[in-house]
Amino acid sequence: MASILPASNRSMRPDKNTYERKRSVYVKNPYLEGMDEDILYHLDLGTKTHNLPAMFGDVKFVCVGGSPNRMKAFAQFMHKELRLEGDGEDIEDICAGTDRYCMFKTGPVLSVSHGMGIPSISIMLHELIKLLHHAHCCDVTIIRIGTSGGIGIAPGSVVITDTAVDSFFKPRFEQVILDNVVTRSTELDKELANDLFNCSREIPNVPTLIGHTMCTYDFYEGQGRLDGALCSFSREKKLDYLKRAYRAGVRNIEMESTVFAAMCGLCGLRAAVVCVTLLDRLESDQINLSHDVLVEYQQRPQLLISNFIKKQLGLCDQMS
Amino acid sequence: MASILPASNRSMRPDKNTYERKRSVYVKNPYLEGMDEDILYHLDLGTKTHNLPAMFGDVKFVCVGGSPNRMKAFAQFMHKELRLEGDGEDIEDICAGTDRYCMFKTGPVLSVSHGMGIPSISIMLHELIKLLHHAHCCDVTIIRIGTSGGIGIAPGSVVITDTAVDSFFKPRFEQVILDNVVTRSTELDKELANDLFNCSREIPNVPTLIGHTMCTYDFYEGQGRLDGALCSFSREKKLDYLKRAYRAGVRNIEMESTVFAAMCGLCGLRAAVVCVTLLDRLESDQINLSHDVLVEYQQRPQLLISNFIKKQLGLCDQMS
Repeated sequence: MASILPASNRSMRPDKNTYERKRSVYVKNPYLEGMDEDILYHLDLGTKTHNLPAMFGDVKFVCVGGSPNRMKAFAQFMHKELRLEGDGEDIEDICAGTDRYCMFKTGPVLSVSHGMGIPSISIMLHELIKLLHHAHCCDVTIIRIGTSGGIGIAPGSVVITDTAVDSFFKPRFEQVILDNVVTRSTELDKELANDLFNCSREIPNVPTLIGHTMCTYDFYEGQGRLDGALCSFSREKKLDYLKRAYRAGVRNIEMESTVFAAMCGLCGLRAAVVCVTLLDRLESDQINLSHDVLVEYQQRPQLLISNFIKKQLGLCDQMS
Repeated sequence: MASILPASNRSMRPDKNTYERKRSVYVKNPYLEGMDEDILYHLDLGTKTHNLPAMFGDVKFVCVGGSPNRMKAFAQFMHKELRLEGDGEDIEDICAGTDRYCMFKTGPVLSVSHGMGIPSISIMLHELIKLLHHAHCCDVTIIRIGTSGGIGIAPGSVVITDTAVDSFFKPRFEQVILDNVVTRSTELDKELANDLFNCSREIPNVPTLIGHTMCTYDFYEGQGRLDGALCSFSREKKLDYLKRAYRAGVRNIEMESTVFAAMCGLCGLRAAVVCVTLLDRLESDQINLSHDVLVEYQQRPQLLISNFIKKQLGLCDQMS
């Protein structure tokens, strides 16, 4: 397939001028250009079976989150917010041929589910980034809107991540490549984080802050929970760990941000992580919110991102 | 909640006599017994909202796999194979209140999806093991029926795992607990693997073998694929790695077996991993099987497990 992008084996760094003019989605794989067909297996899409530029060429915002239902709800919400034709209720899952992920498109906004954990989001990101590349997308902003556990902040707070850190509070992602371990940076776009924070000030009654987000491989033992099937540490050790995390700047814990930051950074995507906290881990381990409160909390990052996207598209004044 | 199981803080090892008489599901968490309520958040079940012993007390076989649709199809298939009442087509998702996992029950067989990757299956296993504990289940066999990439074997082959190994071909799972790394054994039940292998001989035209299964954190770079968004190694390095894996006894690669073996082993569950291979990784990276072939391949482990379960329940003679 022809590409308007520079072959990734020629240059691994975006040219600075090009970058400023038009920020492309870079794959960093010299083998891709030589492939006759690229099957995006877990998305049930492919370069021979689908006209990816026609389907996705206008995408400017990609929002990703763990839950398929939540990402469908977000697409429906964005459809209304962007005042697109129809009520958006019948929006179709583009990946309906597989049950690994769901994907919805409304105008320039793509909403994709990624399941739980680093491996699950990593598979989706590889195939999503190839999709954006094959579709010749440029100037794409990608935002993870998720749920998380908070540390020392009120449940329902929204955390905009400045840096994703691992279980040892280090800003790194360790990628195993064959049997080598390669350390990658987990830096996110600071300007984007600040823009989102400024945007949040216009939303009343949603406490929002910027902080570090810790990304773990496990929800129970890895996050110091006392309520898993296995638990070998004391309440004191748990609290000591969480308090050390707090002192290191961590304000929430989830399970995808490090690999998300690392991969998006490498591929030239402006990336942000915006998660609502469902509980304060200094107070409890179990999530026991009522259904209504849970739904309202989960809408908070969606509301923020919707406002941000409308602003970016210059739609805010005529809509407010 | 009252429990017929020994409190896990009293004994971390099942008593040998009890073990031989009745093999219980052990949680290893001294805090669980003291909890007034246990909310299994990602399953949308709980000890106060559901009568878990009534719902699950008779479960003897738990089958888990990545894809919700596949695990539903397996439950429907088992329903027919066990000649239970009704056609099983309308079998309900017990976890319908959440879209994180799906769960179906037919007779003594529970079929549960776990998504992709170690973190995703680990969350499900913590909550599933607590569910089996709260439901006072005993003599439970758990089998992961999945898809995988083969090494040096024909696509469509079924691999019964003797040992799950990591990316470095080591039979271990490294669990991060707070900020410590603990190494756990990934041994599986050898007798169960042999029973399954014997069972497979009665199924014509499905090549089945016992071998090591490699479990990675990543589908692309971690498995030596040349078709991801990122690829920094040569075709030669890839083949060298996969051939070294083959020489170390690895016959297939997937993304859940090490943590599955580790957790089930610690909790006293007889566990097996049975995966069909969708391609030979020495030949290719992309999965380009036709829909029909893919469906037939995915049914192979299901057929084997169905035969095994019927044998265990003493239902084989009257059915064949």
